[in-house]
Amino acid sequence: MTLLEATCARIREPDTRVAVEMQRRLDDKTKPRGSLGRLEEIACQVAAIRGDIDTAALPPRKAVVVMGADHGVAEESVSAYPQEVTAQMLLNFARGGAAINVLARQAGARVVVVDMGVKTELPALPEIRSLRIGAGTRNFTREPAMSRAEALRALEAGIDIATELAADGITLLGIGDMGIGNTTSSSALTAAFTGAPPAEVVGRGTGIDDDGLHRKIDVVRRALALHRPDAADAVGTLAQLGGYEIAGLAGVVLGAVAARVPVIVDGFICGAAALTAARIAPAAAASLIASHRSVEAGHRAVLKAIGQRPLLDLDLRLGEGTGAVLAMNLVEAALAIVREMATFASAGVTDRDA
Amino acid sequence: MTLLEATCARIREPDTRVAVEMQRRLDDKTKPRGSLGRLEEIACQVAAIRGDIDTAALPPRKAVVVMGADHGVAEESVSAYPQEVTAQMLLNFARGGAAINVLARQAGARVVVVDMGVKTELPALPEIRSLRIGAGTRNFTREPAMSRAEALRALEAGIDIATELAADGITLLGIGDMGIGNTTSSSALTAAFTGAPPAEVVGRGTGIDDDGLHRKIDVVRRALALHRPDAADAVGTLAQLGGYEIAGLAGVVLGAVAARVPVIVDGFICGAAALTAARIAPAAAASLIASHRSVEAGHRAVLKAIGQRPLLDLDLRLGEGTGAVLAMNLVEAALAIVREMATFASAGVTDRDA
Repeated sequence: MTLLEATCARIREPDTRVAVEMQRRLDDKTKPRGSLGRLEEIACQVAAIRGDIDTAALPPRKAVVVMGADHGVAEESVSAYPQEVTAQMLLNFARGGAAINVLARQAGARVVVVDMGVKTELPALPEIRSLRIGAGTRNFTREPAMSRAEALRALEAGIDIATELAADGITLLGIGDMGIGNTTSSSALTAAFTGAPPAEVVGRGTGIDDDGLHRKIDVVRRALALHRPDAADAVGTLAQLGGYEIAGLAGVVLGAVAARVPVIVDGFICGAAALTAARIAPAAAASLIASHRSVEAGHRAVLKAIGQRPLLDLDLRLGEGTGAVLAMNLVEAALAIVREMATFASAGVTDRDA
Repeated sequence: MTLLEATCARIREPDTRVAVEMQRRLDDKTKPRGSLGRLEEIACQVAAIRGDIDTAALPPRKAVVVMGADHGVAEESVSAYPQEVTAQMLLNFARGGAAINVLARQAGARVVVVDMGVKTELPALPEIRSLRIGAGTRNFTREPAMSRAEALRALEAGIDIATELAADGITLLGIGDMGIGNTTSSSALTAAFTGAPPAEVVGRGTGIDDDGLHRKIDVVRRALALHRPDAADAVGTLAQLGGYEIAGLAGVVLGAVAARVPVIVDGFICGAAALTAARIAPAAAASLIASHRSVEAGHRAVLKAIGQRPLLDLDLRLGEGTGAVLAMNLVEAALAIVREMATFASAGVTDRDA
């Protein structure tokens, strides 16, 4: 059995009995029942994932895995930025100057930066894990983005990272991405997995104009016509249309869920990675927490496909895991409520049924 | 000139030139322009309110003012909870066991609990400021909830608190409420100020059933028919239909905005207080930050009337300022981005225009 198969075999649906037990505990707190809305849902979901309410209610230990890679499809002029920006931004992550660094510091989350395959190899730096599958994927309008073997290696690299972080005590994991061209790959994967027409799942990414948008839609159409992806073969579809960082992040999702660690998914690209993971192991979807509703057009289809409603709606379209770490505060708030709030009995407050 | 008049005379619209300057600073950061969406808007808004980008970008010093009072209209059976719960919950706030305490601790915000007039006087406690206007308002289906003089005293008590907090260095202020029956008062005020029909602005509050909902709509209808409020006389309308805590919170808004301190507004009741403040001093509205979209039916009308789009949509309906302190993390995130993120030049990242 491969690592991927073994990991998928360990993935379970969250335990709904524990969610019910958590809701009962919340119902004793001094507030109208259900009045904390989605915070209560999150507390129940985390309890069901962790499998035990007291374990779940502990202050989470947080990390965000940010994976970067280059995309062959960038040569189709689908991005407003040149491809060199992927590597430059990984260096920016390493130096702590990017948005994800700032927001992760505020959230108290460790940032794990991974080079899954930028075009030009980076200098060796302790802040960047090098798990390069190759020097960027190939242009999927002409050939598969990667081989099936490369897709499997990227998935398993992600599983390893998540397994290591879980073993190190991380109990709440965010995922983030960096890769010029990766909204195009994500749109292609989303179209392939959901059947949505390309025009519905292609957006402006970092900010292309109308011409660029039409070119991008055409790129996705041509890729689908060339590869005729079989959505039932999720790894094959990933190899044809994905990116190394998307494959790696799908692996992170699988590894984390197998370790009963909830995964906070950033925006559209991470959503496409999470959707890929959920097509590989459908039981993984219920352990995801969608952080925010991206302005990227395809995100709606992704959220529907993974059955998640995002916590934040802030018109973000940056990636890097920024939405994921912003949402950590809400998960922590939900768990603090469980740990710290008084009950009707302890506070001497009259309940409505009294 | 009264304190209220003097305060209103100091209220200015936020300085849009400073907002533009802040946006320019954000545009130099290593991210696609505008890609942090509403976080960027918030940074610009706070800069415009504070009047200077460097001052605005400092880590905020945070407090939430939670005002409680009883409502005569509670005798019309409009709440799922008995009236004694108002005082019990203020004691719960004083002991630190309520949701607002838990979430304010997490947000690093000081909680200022104020008794604006619960029915049965509370024991003297250092954790509760007693600024009682009376032993609960009167039943506004029969007579005005309070006299104009009482409304003015409550407004000025709120102004004093905000002025004191601003002088004490608070730079980000949340507002919260507690008062059995106060969604009914808020619905009546919202209907009076916006002209919305009662059925559109009355909700289930802490969780009344269908009969209770119809009773509550009828209560608001009867109150409007009895008082025929003149929306142009905001203080008069507040006196007829408001609550002591709502009047106090409207005063807090006015005092904070006069001191150029942004005010994070909780849900529906605080929204009604903010709307009242904005009808007294229209320039105050642009210094408000709506924290969350409440499930209370009337909140939509309030948000539209004050021209605010909330940051969070978490199905909250608890009050106490819980949504306001949850949103503080987002405001802080926006300001941390300004302070800490690298620029394209400093990080050596290629900008799209390069």
